[in-house]
Amino acid sequence: MLREIKVRTTRKEDIVDITERVRSVVREAGVKEAGVFVYVPHTTAAITIHGKIDAEGTPMLDNLLRVATAEGDAGSSQKKAAFVAPTEVLIAVDGELLLGEDQHIYLYEFDGPQERSVYVLLIPSR
Amino acid sequence: MLREIKVRTTRKEDIVDITERVRSVVREAGVKEAGVFVYVPHTTAAITIHGKIDAEGTPMLDNLLRVATAEGDAGSSQKKAAFVAPTEVLIAVDGELLLGEDQHIYLYEFDGPQERSVYVLLIPSR
Amino acid sequence: MLREIKVRTTRKEDIVDITERVRSVVREAGVKEAGVFVYVPHTTAAITIHGKIDAEGTPMLDNLLRVATAEGDAGSSQKKAAFVAPTEVLIAVDGELLLGEDQHIYLYEFDGPQERSVYVLLIPSR
Repeated sequence: MLREIKVRTTRKEDIVDITERVRSVVREAGVKEAGVFVYVPHTTAAITIHGKIDAEGTPMLDNLLRVATAEGDAGSSQKKAAFVAPTEVLIAVDGELLLGEDQHIYLYEFDGPQERSVYVLLIPSR
Repeated sequence: MLREIKVRTTRKEDIVDITERVRSVVREAGVKEAGVFVYVPHTTAAITIHGKIDAEGTPMLDNLLRVATAEGDAGSSQKKAAFVAPTEVLIAVDGELLLGEDQHIYLYEFDGPQERSVYVLLIPSR
Repeated sequence: MLREIKVRTTRKEDIVDITERVRSVVREAGVKEAGVFVYVPHTTAAITIHGKIDAEGTPMLDNLLRVATAEGDAGSSQKKAAFVAPTEVLIAVDGELLLGEDQHIYLYEFDGPQERSVYVLLIPSR
């Protein structure tokens, strides 16, 4: 099952928690056991999974990304996205994502604000 | 087929080679051709694939992770895990992992020692 | 469906655009909806997806990788490959890759020149 989620970002660099929206797709599918692909077909956005972002988390992430990119560089948003990567893969069991208690799925925006497409593909394992 | 592997880490920051345990799951399943998801539902642990780690490899990895995190920072173990990522995806053919001769699958621990769960999902391609 | 793509790299560190070759495999399979795994069974090569690489893009990437590795270090090509990671996962719909207009799939070589194997596995979602 393939579903498209539309996400509106509101700043040049933005982080949007899409956990509940991915979870809804998985529940709707109601699969017993499946691989879940979360994918953005954009070169300046990315998907990642980590703990809930706190106030100081964002600047820290930015430190790493700055090493790889030149501020104001035309291609810097693309390079940041490439490092975070466009895909994450998860597991669904009995219609629920197998996510740790504090794990969240985030869309990273590096060239907003704009409307982004996130694709969620479920592949049953049997 | 979904299997849970229990891994006990023994230090605050630890690296455990889980290649043989993932390989056992793949052999047990005996699939002709499959995608293999290896996933940790934890925000302070991660999965990665690379060559056998040598003595000087670990501090080098740590150099990169230090750029993104502040030493002693409450959230630093989460940020390290986010960079290494919670999932790896592999291919199995005729009941064997399609791994390069020197490729190993590692669990990275950033907040041990503790017992960790690693999930292995096999999705046959036909 | 599993296919092997042979890629010849021509320099010690090289970047080869394999988008069209992966796209051919997907077209040949003609699947309605599938997950696509792209995998290199090598510790000194890697797969990544990002916008078309421009002249200044390559040195930028190298800046990040240098943080994690020591120049001339015997294991540095392995560490670089570990950071870029051996796998990418994509989605195929109606026999076409669901790729953004400017997204390309690249093989990163860190220990060339040599012939590399890239495996492409398609797993239909139904």
